[in-house]
Amino acid sequence: MINIGLLGCGTVGSGVVKLLEQNGETILKKTGKEIRIKKILERDVEKCLELGFAENCITEDIKDIVDDPEIDIIVELLGGISPADEFIIEAMEKGKHVVTANKDLIAVKGQDIFDTAENQKVDFYFEASVAGGIPAVTPLKQSLAGNNIEEVIGILNGTTNYILTKMSREGQDFDDVLKEAQDLGYAEADPSSDVYGLDAARKIAILASIAFNSRVMLDDVYVEGITSINAVDMEYAKELGLEVKLLAIAKQEEGQIQVRVHPAFIPIEHPLASVNGVYNAVFIKGDAVGDIMHYGSGAGQMPTASAVVGDIIEIVRNKNYNSNARIGCTCYDQKPILNINQLEGQFYIRMAVKDRPGALAGIAGVFGNNNVSLSSVLQKTNDWDMAELILITHNTSEQNLRDALAVLKGMSIVGEINNVIRLEGMDKK
Amino acid sequence: MINIGLLGCGTVGSGVVKLLEQNGETILKKTGKEIRIKKILERDVEKCLELGFAENCITEDIKDIVDDPEIDIIVELLGGISPADEFIIEAMEKGKHVVTANKDLIAVKGQDIFDTAENQKVDFYFEASVAGGIPAVTPLKQSLAGNNIEEVIGILNGTTNYILTKMSREGQDFDDVLKEAQDLGYAEADPSSDVYGLDAARKIAILASIAFNSRVMLDDVYVEGITSINAVDMEYAKELGLEVKLLAIAKQEEGQIQVRVHPAFIPIEHPLASVNGVYNAVFIKGDAVGDIMHYGSGAGQMPTASAVVGDIIEIVRNKNYNSNARIGCTCYDQKPILNINQLEGQFYIRMAVKDRPGALAGIAGVFGNNNVSLSSVLQKTNDWDMAELILITHNTSEQNLRDALAVLKGMSIVGEINNVIRLEGMDKK
Repeated sequence: MINIGLLGCGTVGSGVVKLLEQNGETILKKTGKEIRIKKILERDVEKCLELGFAENCITEDIKDIVDDPEIDIIVELLGGISPADEFIIEAMEKGKHVVTANKDLIAVKGQDIFDTAENQKVDFYFEASVAGGIPAVTPLKQSLAGNNIEEVIGILNGTTNYILTKMSREGQDFDDVLKEAQDLGYAEADPSSDVYGLDAARKIAILASIAFNSRVMLDDVYVEGITSINAVDMEYAKELGLEVKLLAIAKQEEGQIQVRVHPAFIPIEHPLASVNGVYNAVFIKGDAVGDIMHYGSGAGQMPTASAVVGDIIEIVRNKNYNSNARIGCTCYDQKPILNINQLEGQFYIRMAVKDRPGALAGIAGVFGNNNVSLSSVLQKTNDWDMAELILITHNTSEQNLRDALAVLKGMSIVGEINNVIRLEGMDKK
Repeated sequence: MINIGLLGCGTVGSGVVKLLEQNGETILKKTGKEIRIKKILERDVEKCLELGFAENCITEDIKDIVDDPEIDIIVELLGGISPADEFIIEAMEKGKHVVTANKDLIAVKGQDIFDTAENQKVDFYFEASVAGGIPAVTPLKQSLAGNNIEEVIGILNGTTNYILTKMSREGQDFDDVLKEAQDLGYAEADPSSDVYGLDAARKIAILASIAFNSRVMLDDVYVEGITSINAVDMEYAKELGLEVKLLAIAKQEEGQIQVRVHPAFIPIEHPLASVNGVYNAVFIKGDAVGDIMHYGSGAGQMPTASAVVGDIIEIVRNKNYNSNARIGCTCYDQKPILNINQLEGQFYIRMAVKDRPGALAGIAGVFGNNNVSLSSVLQKTNDWDMAELILITHNTSEQNLRDALAVLKGMSIVGEINNVIRLEGMDKK
C-alpha cells in the first residue's frame, strides 16, 4: 500500500482522485501496489466528502500530513509559491517524495527544491507543470537524453492559442476575441498572466533548464504578450504564407542559451502552425533525433491528472526497486543566457509612410545604414496620402533593428511604425 | 565504465557509435558513467576500423561477446528473427541487458524474450523498434501509465507516407511515384514489406501490446497495403475534405482489441492529416489525457540512434541504482482480438454504374437490405453511358458491407466497384 497526501483538492486534485479510482485496478497491476489518498489538505471539506473521503482524512494543518510516517508521496496542487515551497521542502525533509503541477514554484524556486530532493534522496517529479498531459519533461530527461538539444519551441498557453486561432480564422481583433473567450470560460477574468506571456514564460524556463542542463529562471526569460497583434497583421500573415503563434522559444548555440516568449510568424508548413485552439505543443530539435513534436491538451482537469498519476506510478516503481532519486536534477552546467539585444532573427515590420517620391529609398537607406538588410517589401496604399509598407528583413541583430527603428521614428515621412513581429522557423518554408 | 557489445555495425550501428562519441561528455554527466563499445559483432571489419575500433574489438563469433563478463549491455542491430533471438536470449541468460531496434523480432518472438528478461532480472528496451527517434514506447509505459488507452493510431512507415503525400500533392499514380521513390532511395528495390503494410503491422503490434497490456502478435494484425490507392480517389478525397494515409490502428473497447493496417481517409482537420513526407506520428487517445500526438522522423541513422542511446542511458541509470528490470513486460492481461469482419466503421465506395433510370434506387436498395445506411452520395457522369458513384456510408459492420458489395457485383447495372476505402477519425471533422 502506497499512501498519498494530497495538498489541494481543486479541479486537478479531484481529477487525480477520480483517475486513481477509475484506473486503480490497472495501476495496481502495473505497480504491484495499491495507491490510496490517505489525507487531503483542503479547506473545502464539503467537496472532499462528496468525493467519498471520510472526515478524518481532511485537514487544514499541513503537519497532519508531513508528520504522518505512513504517507509516502505528497502531491502538491496548491499552486503559487508560498506556502507550497515550504510544504514541499518540509515533506522532503521528512523523506517524502513529491509530485507537483506547480510551474510558478519551479520556475522561481526550482533550485532549492532540487537541492533538498538530492540531499534527501527523494523523487521530485513535475511532468504536469508544463503542457498538461503531454509528455514533455520526461522525454527530455529520458528518451531524448542522448541528444544535444538545440531548440525547444512550445505553444504552451491554451488561452492565447485559442485567441490567436480565432483571430486568424475569423479576422476579428484581439479585444473582441478576448471578451468572447472570457464569456466562454476559456480565458480568466484577469487574463494578464496568459495574454502577457508570463504563464508560457514559466513553462519554457522549466523546459529550457531540462533541455540544456542549465538552470533557467523566470527572470531570465524575455517576455512579450499578444496584445499588440491585430487583424491587419493576421491578414498580411496569410498573404505571406505565415501563421501567428505565441511561441515560447529556447535555443542553445555554442554553449549559450536564449529564452524568450513572444508572438511570432511561422510558415504554415511548420508543424506548430497547425496547432490550433486550446491545444499545446512542444517542438524539439536534437542533434541526433532531428525535429520532433509532442501535441495534446495543455491543460484541463483530466489531462493534468494524467501527468500527475504518471509521475506517481514512476515513484512507486522506484520505491519497489529502492531506486528513488535515480533521475534527479540534471542542471549540472551553468551556461550564459543571452540578452534579447544580442539575438539575431528575421522581422516583419508594418509601417505607415507618406506617399512621396523617394520615401521608400529613404527608409531603405536607414535600414542599410544600420546593417539591416531587407528580404522583401510590400507596398499597399490605403489612405489618399499614406502608404502602408510591409517589410521582411533578412537575419539581423535585434539591436541593429532597434537602432534603425529609432531613426525611422524621427523621420517626417514616417507616419507610424504599427507593428514589429519576429519570424521563426523560416527554414521550414 | 559501462561496456557495450554491439551486434551489427550497419547504418544504425555506426550512428550509435557516432552519437556515444559526439555526446559522450554530457552522457557521462547524466549517468556518472563512461560508456564504451567494447566489442562489435560484424563481418565488415574495414567499416569498424574506419570508425576507429581496434582489430581485436571486432569479431564474427557471438561467444566473444556474450561470454565476456565485462560486457554489461548488448545492443542488437542485426535485424531479422534468427539468429538475433538466440543471441539476445543467450546474452540475457548471461545477465546482460539488451537494447534492440528489431521490430520483426519483438512482433513475433516478444513473449520469449520478455519472459527471459523477467527471469534474469535484466532490462529489455526497444524504443527504437517503433517510429525511430520519436518517443512512443516509453511514454506509453511511463508518462501515460495512469490512462486506460483507447486508441493508438500511427503513421509508422515513412516510405508509404512519402508516396501517398506525393500522390496527393501532385496527382500522380502509385506506380509512378513508387519508381521515383526508388530512384531517390526513399523506397527499397523490393518495397513489398513497406507498400503491403507489413512493416507498419509489426510496429502497431508492438504499440498495441504496450498500450492495452495484452500481447498482440504480427499475425493478429489485419493488413492491407496502399497499392490500390490511385489518383482518382485522391482527387475525390480532396473534394470531400479528406486526406489518404496508411494508418496503423489499434483500438480497445470493452476489453476487446482491434488491430489493423490499411489506407484510410481522414479529415484534413485531424492532426495525422498534416503528417507528410517521410515523417511518422503516433496519435494516442487515453481516457484521462485525451488526444495526444508524437511526431518526428520515423527512421534514419541518427534518429534511430537517438532512441537506442536513450535506452542505453536508462539502463545505466538503472544499474546505478541496482534497479534493472524495474519496468518489465506490461502484458499482464489477455484480451480477445476481434476479427476484421466484426468491426464497424465508415466506408468510401467508388463504383461505375450504367446511367439508367432507377439505377441509384436499385443500388441504394441493396445497401439498405444489408443494413448499410448511406451518409452521402455523389454522382459524376464521366463516360457517355456510365456514371461514377461516390458513396460514403454511416457506421456499418465490415461484414454487412461485404455482403452488400457481393450482391452489387452481380447486378447488371453495376460496371465495376473501383475502390473501397475506410474512413477514420471522422469525429475530428
